[in-house]
Amino acid sequence: MASDLRYSEEPVRPPGPRQLLVQVLYLSVDPGLRGWLNPARTYIAPVEVGDVMRAIGVGKVVEANGHNRFSPGDYVMGMLGTQEVCTTDGEDLVRVDPALAPLPTYLGTLGLPGLTAYVAVSDLGRPAQGETFVVSAGAGAVGSVAGQLARLRDCRVVGIVGGYEKCRYVTEELRFDAAIDYKSEEVSRGLRRECPDGVNVYLDNVGGEILDAVLERLARGARVVISGAVSQYNVTGPWRGPSNYMSLLVNRASMVGFVVWDHLDRYESFVAEMAALIRNGSVRSREQIVDGLAELPNAVATLFAGDNLGKLVLRIAGDE
Amino acid sequence: MASDLRYSEEPVRPPGPRQLLVQVLYLSVDPGLRGWLNPARTYIAPVEVGDVMRAIGVGKVVEANGHNRFSPGDYVMGMLGTQEVCTTDGEDLVRVDPALAPLPTYLGTLGLPGLTAYVAVSDLGRPAQGETFVVSAGAGAVGSVAGQLARLRDCRVVGIVGGYEKCRYVTEELRFDAAIDYKSEEVSRGLRRECPDGVNVYLDNVGGEILDAVLERLARGARVVISGAVSQYNVTGPWRGPSNYMSLLVNRASMVGFVVWDHLDRYESFVAEMAALIRNGSVRSREQIVDGLAELPNAVATLFAGDNLGKLVLRIAGDE
Repeated sequence: MASDLRYSEEPVRPPGPRQLLVQVLYLSVDPGLRGWLNPARTYIAPVEVGDVMRAIGVGKVVEANGHNRFSPGDYVMGMLGTQEVCTTDGEDLVRVDPALAPLPTYLGTLGLPGLTAYVAVSDLGRPAQGETFVVSAGAGAVGSVAGQLARLRDCRVVGIVGGYEKCRYVTEELRFDAAIDYKSEEVSRGLRRECPDGVNVYLDNVGGEILDAVLERLARGARVVISGAVSQYNVTGPWRGPSNYMSLLVNRASMVGFVVWDHLDRYESFVAEMAALIRNGSVRSREQIVDGLAELPNAVATLFAGDNLGKLVLRIAGDE
Repeated sequence: MASDLRYSEEPVRPPGPRQLLVQVLYLSVDPGLRGWLNPARTYIAPVEVGDVMRAIGVGKVVEANGHNRFSPGDYVMGMLGTQEVCTTDGEDLVRVDPALAPLPTYLGTLGLPGLTAYVAVSDLGRPAQGETFVVSAGAGAVGSVAGQLARLRDCRVVGIVGGYEKCRYVTEELRFDAAIDYKSEEVSRGLRRECPDGVNVYLDNVGGEILDAVLERLARGARVVISGAVSQYNVTGPWRGPSNYMSLLVNRASMVGFVVWDHLDRYESFVAEMAALIRNGSVRSREQIVDGLAELPNAVATLFAGDNLGKLVLRIAGDE
């Protein structure tokens, strides 16, 4: 991806009336960064050659020009782009509170990954007490929160992760019931061992073989929630569809997709609830901070190799 | 399939206490007949070599031996098997009324295909007024009923069918709004033309390429209902999964599978409602009758070639 990006210096675009000038402080390193470069329109238009690369970030409002929601000094989260300063009408930005949690947390557990996990568990998957909840990329920004939320609902929580260190992280630090290391064993085999009664709810971020393995192991009435397909973002040509989709029929199961941006109206109540869970120790959060905009391509490569532990965040500037 | 079946004459197994002896009158020629021969367990155990081939039929109770639900002379529908006389405990049989409709209709519009369509439309797909409802195998036993039920909900109804004759049948006789002939054009192209606002509800019986084409054309919030995958029943090796399943995410859509046997408790109220719709001309029904058990393999081949028009039924015996 490094060769697809070009760093350039340009004058700051002055904000018009009711536009904001935001100093970018942290940027989220997301699988979406790769997906947004694909030319097909998905839930959002692709980034065009010459555009500023899209990215979610946290920043501080420097100028507000009579904006109806934000004033200078406010902290905001949203699509700020991979740049040091962002000029925006602020429509999709939400306010964040640095007194409640460190700013990078608003790109992970208290940010869109956390909201994704929250919607997937509370609204769509709704795992009940005693049910088995499985999440792929279980140590990732979405999976780590989803697993912990399912644990709070007294589910059996199984994370599919890559590598011993992540197995240890999700079972010991995040208190999942079990982990399956897809790098060291067949996922099907791990699922047979760890999900003896089948899978009631599955949150999938990865697609591909792992999705097929879980479909094969669904319990009656299972709910599969699709929030991404990281394994396919670098595929050119047709994607690999789930061969075992007829398991939906056999098991009277459902598969549902969603996009977190549709749920921004719940952000405020989500943050209040999640911040309380972090404060009382029910949910643990971890970020891995990398310094400087120039590190973006390397950070994306790290993410796709699965070499990070915790939410990958790029620090663009210190907060004075 | 002919070479997989052997015709043999065996003495009738005498019914035990509270068992029924049923004379088989009509048998349903189903895609399931092929699926049930595959060795993998799906929603029902596969038919083993040496077993009587499974089939749904309508018959007349000859002996009842103190059965708690049925008496001699009753007409019944259920898994009677490809045989002239069936000995059964009658657990999964339902009563049918020859005064309400001709017996073969109980294998089509008033039978499990009709109930499948009814559950798919009323419970799972729930197309609303003005929405676009698409059904594959639109001239088939399930599709023809589903399309007519969607039409009664004031939907735009589009049937995907094979051949000009079926296009004519669904648009003129069944009053669908449009038909797409997958034998004469790309389904994607037909969908673009006939579903300008996208597909809100899709009932899929066929899987494969057609499912992928419809997924590509989903409207926001679409519901995909899976009741079969006829295109894959003869595939050896892994099935073709829907490459475009991420359209579920992009369009905040869902895909749900179901098995009609779970809904037998609604059979009685379904029959009352559907028989009334047939009587007042709102729903039209057609059966194609073939004579004799020996015709079963040919009839299944006709079905998979898509050469039948209307529900294919095998007549085993006349009703005195």
